[in-house]
Amino acid sequence: MKKTEYPIAIRELIAQLRGMPGVGPRSAERIALWIVQARSDQPEEIARAILSTRETVRPCAKCGFFTMEELCEICSDPARTADQLCVVEQATDILPLEKTSAFRGRYHSLGGRISPLDHVSPEDLRIAQLIKRIQTERFSEVILALAADVEGEATTNYLVELLKPFPLVITRIAHGLPAGGGLESADELTLYQALSGRTRL
Amino acid sequence: MKKTEYPIAIRELIAQLRGMPGVGPRSAERIALWIVQARSDQPEEIARAILSTRETVRPCAKCGFFTMEELCEICSDPARTADQLCVVEQATDILPLEKTSAFRGRYHSLGGRISPLDHVSPEDLRIAQLIKRIQTERFSEVILALAADVEGEATTNYLVELLKPFPLVITRIAHGLPAGGGLESADELTLYQALSGRTRL
Repeated sequence: MKKTEYPIAIRELIAQLRGMPGVGPRSAERIALWIVQARSDQPEEIARAILSTRETVRPCAKCGFFTMEELCEICSDPARTADQLCVVEQATDILPLEKTSAFRGRYHSLGGRISPLDHVSPEDLRIAQLIKRIQTERFSEVILALAADVEGEATTNYLVELLKPFPLVITRIAHGLPAGGGLESADELTLYQALSGRTRL
Repeated sequence: MKKTEYPIAIRELIAQLRGMPGVGPRSAERIALWIVQARSDQPEEIARAILSTRETVRPCAKCGFFTMEELCEICSDPARTADQLCVVEQATDILPLEKTSAFRGRYHSLGGRISPLDHVSPEDLRIAQLIKRIQTERFSEVILALAADVEGEATTNYLVELLKPFPLVITRIAHGLPAGGGLESADELTLYQALSGRTRL
């Protein structure tokens, strides 16, 4: 007995949609059926938005944040402090930091972190560009804001060694108890770092 | 102080993606950033799959199921029983019924159900086409497989009246306890229907 299926175009669309992050088989099917049945041209508009974003958005030539120009709105903003540089792993790390309003300097995205297991070595990252910026833009402080995991730590340590020769204050963001987190739910390493990094009151 | 944002193209893409069912603000942002950063051309392929599905998939001229031809694979399958017709609300109801393997006849999707609150009256549904099929295809049984809610019941009752003049057995799918459901978790109406529809053992 032949199994009834959706037409091949729908099955291929479901397979494609499953490639998007966080979209499992059931939501891919739901979205695909919505696309097939929609009476407005919203699906066409989504397709056009995908294609146009792919064409018009690129990494900022300086810091790697998203932009539709040569430089992003942060790098081209003369009102921002020019003597602090915050180094992050990914362009997507920048907006969460911006939302804190705790930093008004410049950013530099490495485009990843050193990870031998994933075959990512320092040459694969935007480290040469970082050095060049430090030489030309004359920051007084470089803040390392990388992840608090093994690869993030390794990358932080690598950068600290690399930046030692420069006349800079090198800092890194604090590791410790997350907001709202009790001691009983914190893991051992977090507590160790919270203790070691204690500040005087 | 100016708030840093994504470039307008990304913000518009996020707004578009939120139009898809089940995609909230956080998943729309996550998908949009994936689209911007993907190194393969998977996002372009998704956009093309959306556009091509919109162009190639249409409702079957007979039953309303999805097809890329004039008739769907169910309507054009000569091996299927030609004397039973199963009436459903939506084209999307057909595949779940097919998966049960309990029915090997034909289908007819109404394209909705009678719902005065949503301004859907019988003329808005594929009821004229249903009558025409019943006159020409000479089914011996019509199974009404509509939802077990107020509008589904109203539509079922409407169809029962309409089909009375035809030499047909009219049936409807059973209402009762869902599989795996205990009596304590069933609502009053479900239990009432389960009792009224009891079958002899």
